[in-house]
Amino acid sequence: MQTAFHLTSGDEEHQDTVLTIAENLSNDETIEMDDIAVVAQAEGIDPLTVGGAHSGTVESLLADGIAFKACSNTLDMLDLAEGDLVEGVETVSSGASELTRLQDDGYAYLRP
Amino acid sequence: MQTAFHLTSGDEEHQDTVLTIAENLSNDETIEMDDIAVVAQAEGIDPLTVGGAHSGTVESLLADGIAFKACSNTLDMLDLAEGDLVEGVETVSSGASELTRLQDDGYAYLRP
Amino acid sequence: MQTAFHLTSGDEEHQDTVLTIAENLSNDETIEMDDIAVVAQAEGIDPLTVGGAHSGTVESLLADGIAFKACSNTLDMLDLAEGDLVEGVETVSSGASELTRLQDDGYAYLRP
Repeated sequence: MQTAFHLTSGDEEHQDTVLTIAENLSNDETIEMDDIAVVAQAEGIDPLTVGGAHSGTVESLLADGIAFKACSNTLDMLDLAEGDLVEGVETVSSGASELTRLQDDGYAYLRP
Repeated sequence: MQTAFHLTSGDEEHQDTVLTIAENLSNDETIEMDDIAVVAQAEGIDPLTVGGAHSGTVESLLADGIAFKACSNTLDMLDLAEGDLVEGVETVSSGASELTRLQDDGYAYLRP
Repeated sequence: MQTAFHLTSGDEEHQDTVLTIAENLSNDETIEMDDIAVVAQAEGIDPLTVGGAHSGTVESLLADGIAFKACSNTLDMLDLAEGDLVEGVETVSSGASELTRLQDDGYAYLRP
């Protein structure tokens, strides 16, 4: 199965909850997950940036095979370049279009 | 494609984020959107009311073809009438039933 | 139709909003609901525990036929046992896997 998480919160504790839930899903042996993606936009982009809160967790989850996708509109608005993102994070034209496409492809949507 | 946004927050900054993300999706040239709807309920109803915070943005997005739907339960609870809503906003029996119907019709769901 | 609610917030007013919206959906005569489920995890678990805020509302909604599912990861993290849950609440291996399965089974997803 496939699941996309939507990360928009600027609250560090909330961000930690979202990342922990994604990790728990990845480790849950009762379900066979083909793909897990985290789509971040607005204030939720920070963990995907180098030196951002929880960026170490993002690196670890990327190594576990979870995909991270950063909204280009948000990058533009915050004057961030691709080089500011943790290595392995992809950019997408917009968070909303990517989450629309993923759901159309059969992904479940979770916004903890 | 089709996408429904769920707007329930009473926080004006959060409301602005939801409306901005809907507008960005409407303007994203990498995806062909047939329908975008914003379903508002609970404290998220304010931007859909005349004189509400961000009601000018709602008018502008309505003109761009984005649909806005107000939950009748919320209107009853807040003693609001249809005449209190920005012109062009529809009412629906309940926010939850409308979002269930829309997803059943193939809409993606986004709750930024 | 079928709808799953995602309850993760520790804010008691927000929890009340989620439960009220689930109840309104159950009472909405414009839609035929076959199943309504509330999946709780993280700080959203409290209303499902004996003596928790809004646990009386959970008992009442269970009697109305709404299912409540508690995330086992959250129970472990908070040192809660099944006996701490309101009678009738089910446990699931993880909130995210259950919501993935439910959406795969055709449930709409709502995170008010």
